[in-house]
Amino acid sequence: MQVQLEAGPVAGFSFAGVQAGLKSSDRKDLGLIVAERPVPAAGLFTTNQVKAAPVILAQERLRAGHLRAIAANSGSANCFTGRAGMKLAQASCLALARELKCAAELVIPCSTGVIGHRYDFERYQAGLRMAVDALSPQGMADFAHAIMTTDTTAKIARTSFRAAGTAITVAGVAKGAGMIAPNVATMLSFILTDAAIPAAALRRTLAAAAPQSFNAVTVDGDMSTNDTVILAASGAAANARLAGRDLALFQEAVNAVTHELARQLVFDGEGATKLVTIHVRGASSATAARRIARQIANSPLVKTAFFGCDPNVGRIAAAAGACGVPLDPERLELRIDKVKIAARGMILVDALPAAAQRMHERQFTVTLDLKQGKQAASMMTCDLSHDYVTINAEYTT
Amino acid sequence: MQVQLEAGPVAGFSFAGVQAGLKSSDRKDLGLIVAERPVPAAGLFTTNQVKAAPVILAQERLRAGHLRAIAANSGSANCFTGRAGMKLAQASCLALARELKCAAELVIPCSTGVIGHRYDFERYQAGLRMAVDALSPQGMADFAHAIMTTDTTAKIARTSFRAAGTAITVAGVAKGAGMIAPNVATMLSFILTDAAIPAAALRRTLAAAAPQSFNAVTVDGDMSTNDTVILAASGAAANARLAGRDLALFQEAVNAVTHELARQLVFDGEGATKLVTIHVRGASSATAARRIARQIANSPLVKTAFFGCDPNVGRIAAAAGACGVPLDPERLELRIDKVKIAARGMILVDALPAAAQRMHERQFTVTLDLKQGKQAASMMTCDLSHDYVTINAEYTT
Repeated sequence: MQVQLEAGPVAGFSFAGVQAGLKSSDRKDLGLIVAERPVPAAGLFTTNQVKAAPVILAQERLRAGHLRAIAANSGSANCFTGRAGMKLAQASCLALARELKCAAELVIPCSTGVIGHRYDFERYQAGLRMAVDALSPQGMADFAHAIMTTDTTAKIARTSFRAAGTAITVAGVAKGAGMIAPNVATMLSFILTDAAIPAAALRRTLAAAAPQSFNAVTVDGDMSTNDTVILAASGAAANARLAGRDLALFQEAVNAVTHELARQLVFDGEGATKLVTIHVRGASSATAARRIARQIANSPLVKTAFFGCDPNVGRIAAAAGACGVPLDPERLELRIDKVKIAARGMILVDALPAAAQRMHERQFTVTLDLKQGKQAASMMTCDLSHDYVTINAEYTT
Repeated sequence: MQVQLEAGPVAGFSFAGVQAGLKSSDRKDLGLIVAERPVPAAGLFTTNQVKAAPVILAQERLRAGHLRAIAANSGSANCFTGRAGMKLAQASCLALARELKCAAELVIPCSTGVIGHRYDFERYQAGLRMAVDALSPQGMADFAHAIMTTDTTAKIARTSFRAAGTAITVAGVAKGAGMIAPNVATMLSFILTDAAIPAAALRRTLAAAAPQSFNAVTVDGDMSTNDTVILAASGAAANARLAGRDLALFQEAVNAVTHELARQLVFDGEGATKLVTIHVRGASSATAARRIARQIANSPLVKTAFFGCDPNVGRIAAAAGACGVPLDPERLELRIDKVKIAARGMILVDALPAAAQRMHERQFTVTLDLKQGKQAASMMTCDLSHDYVTINAEYTT
């Protein structure tokens, strides 16, 4: 399914992004997504044991399966902030609920930024009022900018399709890749659709989309305390019930949007100069393929070799063998794009220069065939560069 | 138990290290450890599914519980070299067995260096003859140099104690930390003693020493294809049977030597500017403590923060929460050396400058108290610096 990268409206939702002064820079830092009335929604959250206050609150509230508004701020993660942090998250939702004249339980809070830091509530309240005034169906780009931290670009993706006799739109925004930047945590993503579809179906759709998108990317393997993905459906398309092929099309649209957002996250990963897809095939199970792909994608030695344009068979094979999945080194086949660099447990030395050439591209694929079975999995990762170290080390408290 | 860092004799063993021309540089690259007769021995090997030919052979042979000689080369890992690699390892052992007039099964091969590369057998044979001629009880330092790859210093440790009425020596050499340097894999370590002690006891001693030494260190979390640790006992001390307190002293000596070697490995880790001990305590089980310590020790974000002397509570807490061990963020207590920087789920902001000061030292300790129970575990790690990226990226095939 074709995906566009521009912002645009999703019927039934309005958006805003304003500068509330929550962070030191003079950038937007508070964003709103507001539905015309309570709408079905589903969420996915970090599995980290250390969860930010807004994550705990959002997870609890989305169990009911609906939301009226999402309030997302950058500049402060409101994590590791104790009871005061939870009170702040609750008060923030209540403030927006009053503006919108809805129950506080219908407001979903999200925060990203410095861990251990609470934002200033007075400024937040003033910002909320500005944001409510600014709400507009055309405000998605403003929202996308308001949630950026160390991102160098806003991440937006959208697609449309016809199902149940109606045109349906799925669009999403995202920020950050994994744990990123000085004291800044979080991947946030918000996927919106005008489809009429109940919360239970949204939950299943989001759960099915995650393994091939947000759970198939890594920048540094570090798991954030604030990761949040929300899928909400306004129903404004007034389509008939999505089932069978129509439901499959909806899933395909959500897959396409989430995969594209995930791709943009890795492409904009800290210090990244390359986007590398690790494709493991010929595995005896999809789980085994995923574990091996993840081990390769997170290996610092493999990632520095990517940075150095080095088709280092040994490091990739060693990473593949390190995650406990049984494999036969004698059968491994390894390719950089279409260039085969290892087969039958031996390095194909003559092919290495051509493979190194491929690795100078901004994007390439590493394919490892285990020759054990028919299952496969992919991960998107980036290289480990000097800039990664600079970005993450050059900070002093 | 006090540990010395100088090389010296271990009665019953002789050593050599020569330049056989197996690597491009003009350095020693072939080392021998030879016992006067077959002696009890035990080994620990990489659990990587991709194992070098010499590892497969060594593991198989040490099941019998004895060895006459260890032949270790640098310059080539003889891994990912297919059947030709296995034949090369076998022929190498046979060549030494002929020189020593012993069974080939009593020769344990070890290789470290470029993966996918086989060494030149003619040069190896000629080197073996030189090495056999050079064998000497005083040759441990030569041996230690012959197995170095990207190591900047040779790693040696020794200790002595009295047990069963006799003076007993335990000494060891090691090289490399985890997977290191362009295409070079491997941690090798050889621990020798003049104690009279059977193979079964050596196996138990080595297994007990590993969790607090070689399995308690990380440089980049990458698992090598060639890791090998061997403990061999000449029996030259002619002590009475080691049991009870005497056996405990022997364990203590092996613990002290292996811990010191592991410490030297991390201290000499690629690009490392700091040695950091991660101590997790107050856990409900030692396994839980070890998993959390390992997750913190391997986190690129934590390691870059170490490099930047940044007491980054958020990254450490997020890493602790990421490994699946249940924990209560509200109870976490975090210290850099003795400076408390977090308690009751909050950052102690005023303490951060003092903590940052501690992190400018060459060695410091991060202590995380979970306040759940009484179990603890430690890991030694290093920082992630620009030099790590340079060393591992600046290589082109």
